[in-house]
Amino acid sequence: MNDHAYMARALALAEKGLYSTHPNPRVGCVIVRDGEIVGEGWHARAGEPHAEVFALQQAGERARGATVYVSLEPCSHHGRTPPCAEALVNAGVARVVAAMRDPNPQVSGRGLGRLVDADIDVLCGVMGDEARALNIGFVKRMETGMPYVRVKMAMSLDGRTAMANGESQWITGPAARAAVQRLRARSSAILTGADTVMTDRARMTVRPDELGLDAETTELATRAQPLRVLVDGALRVPLNVPFFQAGPALVVCATRGMPEDYAKHGHELLEMPTGDGGGRVDLQGLIRSLGAFGLNDVLVEAGPRLAGAFARLGLVDEYQLFVAPKFLGSGARPLLELPLEKMAEARELNICDIRPVGTDWLITAKPA
Amino acid sequence: MNDHAYMARALALAEKGLYSTHPNPRVGCVIVRDGEIVGEGWHARAGEPHAEVFALQQAGERARGATVYVSLEPCSHHGRTPPCAEALVNAGVARVVAAMRDPNPQVSGRGLGRLVDADIDVLCGVMGDEARALNIGFVKRMETGMPYVRVKMAMSLDGRTAMANGESQWITGPAARAAVQRLRARSSAILTGADTVMTDRARMTVRPDELGLDAETTELATRAQPLRVLVDGALRVPLNVPFFQAGPALVVCATRGMPEDYAKHGHELLEMPTGDGGGRVDLQGLIRSLGAFGLNDVLVEAGPRLAGAFARLGLVDEYQLFVAPKFLGSGARPLLELPLEKMAEARELNICDIRPVGTDWLITAKPA
Repeated sequence: MNDHAYMARALALAEKGLYSTHPNPRVGCVIVRDGEIVGEGWHARAGEPHAEVFALQQAGERARGATVYVSLEPCSHHGRTPPCAEALVNAGVARVVAAMRDPNPQVSGRGLGRLVDADIDVLCGVMGDEARALNIGFVKRMETGMPYVRVKMAMSLDGRTAMANGESQWITGPAARAAVQRLRARSSAILTGADTVMTDRARMTVRPDELGLDAETTELATRAQPLRVLVDGALRVPLNVPFFQAGPALVVCATRGMPEDYAKHGHELLEMPTGDGGGRVDLQGLIRSLGAFGLNDVLVEAGPRLAGAFARLGLVDEYQLFVAPKFLGSGARPLLELPLEKMAEARELNICDIRPVGTDWLITAKPA
Repeated sequence: MNDHAYMARALALAEKGLYSTHPNPRVGCVIVRDGEIVGEGWHARAGEPHAEVFALQQAGERARGATVYVSLEPCSHHGRTPPCAEALVNAGVARVVAAMRDPNPQVSGRGLGRLVDADIDVLCGVMGDEARALNIGFVKRMETGMPYVRVKMAMSLDGRTAMANGESQWITGPAARAAVQRLRARSSAILTGADTVMTDRARMTVRPDELGLDAETTELATRAQPLRVLVDGALRVPLNVPFFQAGPALVVCATRGMPEDYAKHGHELLEMPTGDGGGRVDLQGLIRSLGAFGLNDVLVEAGPRLAGAFARLGLVDEYQLFVAPKFLGSGARPLLELPLEKMAEARELNICDIRPVGTDWLITAKPA
């Protein structure tokens, strides 16, 4: 096996933390001596040991003189756990291969620097693209302060999300709905709108029995629910809808509200109006705040109006479009409320992936 | 090699006639003796010899005792060429493997029967699905009298075909437009509507330099243009539009017209109103007539209104949707004018294929 193959293994280990590490990144580690894997580890949850620590524990004395593959630069700072770079030095490893640097410009390179100072051979950049993709939200937040925003929509092949009367259950089939559950579970926050929680009576929770994951991963994925954020500019949504019954939520409004009413039920109210007095929530400010709260990945599951507002404001990093093989017809509701006049205003996209999900198809696209 | 491999070769030969055999089917033939291919042929054009004739010519004396692979049951009737079953008997072949029977119920089995009567070993059904797919229009016409109707649309990822002001050039890129040229070239007729030829100034011709095919195939594909059919219920389209300048066309109306005016310019006028006096063309009757004229494959290239009418009437066999990676927004025109009230009325589809075409994607879907 070569560096690439061991790093692929480290990334596969990292991915085990897909649903549970936030706000931390997913990290995997493999320790190899004389062509044999002597230690493996991955980070499962914030506050618990990092991937390197588990791998070093497993390797024990065999770490001395070994090569360590790790999907992210080892940390150099004392956080909730002691610095991993220090632990690698103390274990006497000979070589460290990292997929990418720590994206935080404040610390980037310091972990590797500590290793170099200790005369450890260091190589960085093996499978870097894959490593970035696995932690795309963490990387974006570290680099820009903003979370990575995914907009999920379920649509028909003719681009419609609901009938004119609002009827929208179910456009897509059970496999697509399970995929949405997994999208939720890997997100730090799920953001929705007033119409969705009132009309569809959506709860926006991660439901263990609908994830379609093995028992261990399901347990990890559901120990904590993602933050549920409701954009409710005029505070129209009554506290007795299923969304509010399903657990604590963050409500964002553009009006003067009564925080105590929400707090009584375990919810938090945040006033964040746009500056123009138009009664609308400042979505840009909200997304920036979610980044400041330490949220890496925000999943927007909303109707055409709120999702369209995100599109208009250029806040969308990625669309996850579940496409059902049917036509809902020309009277049905659009994908996004996005009024454009001329072809030159069309929003260009890059289609990154198209794959079948049960009888539906999932198209992943990013603004060009 | 086994039967399957030789038949695959026969089908590949048959496909060379994709753009030129109509109204005949595409047929290929391979003659094998002692594990060696001694003759190959394919049908190029109506009035010219059938695939078997070419293959027998090439094989000469070596056809005696050989196995013949042919993608369609050899004909048993005297048409523009003598019956191939007879020619195979005379050549002394030992075995004939056919992919499928002649779909014409009047003649189906007679060709094979003639071979069996002459003590030739006969096997039918090898790669039958592939053979049917290659001649799907011919097969449908033989079995039902109706041609196979493909509706081609170019749309954005949010299911829109033009801006509200009608602007629609170009939604898709050059590779998709070349694919449309090849779709036209393989069709017996191209059917369009008044708005398309007036607003888009569409000619609906096959243009040699835009096909993206090799010189030989291009020559075959463009020796004759498909029949161009214009649905113009109220005869709104003036004779000076590019569509009429580009060659003879069939105009179908629902009003009393002046056939002489059209005949003067080489066009034919057909009155075919619905019985209800609503001033609309009887599309069902028109499609049936096109079948009766011997047309196998009809390509509908029209706007949302005419294409939507085909959809509403259940006349569509297949959608070819070219999807551009962009959003045209919620004010843009729909894929199909297809008003539906309830989710239960949604038109279910089977997605048969999704593939990249340049920077666009082609989705092939059939009504479920």
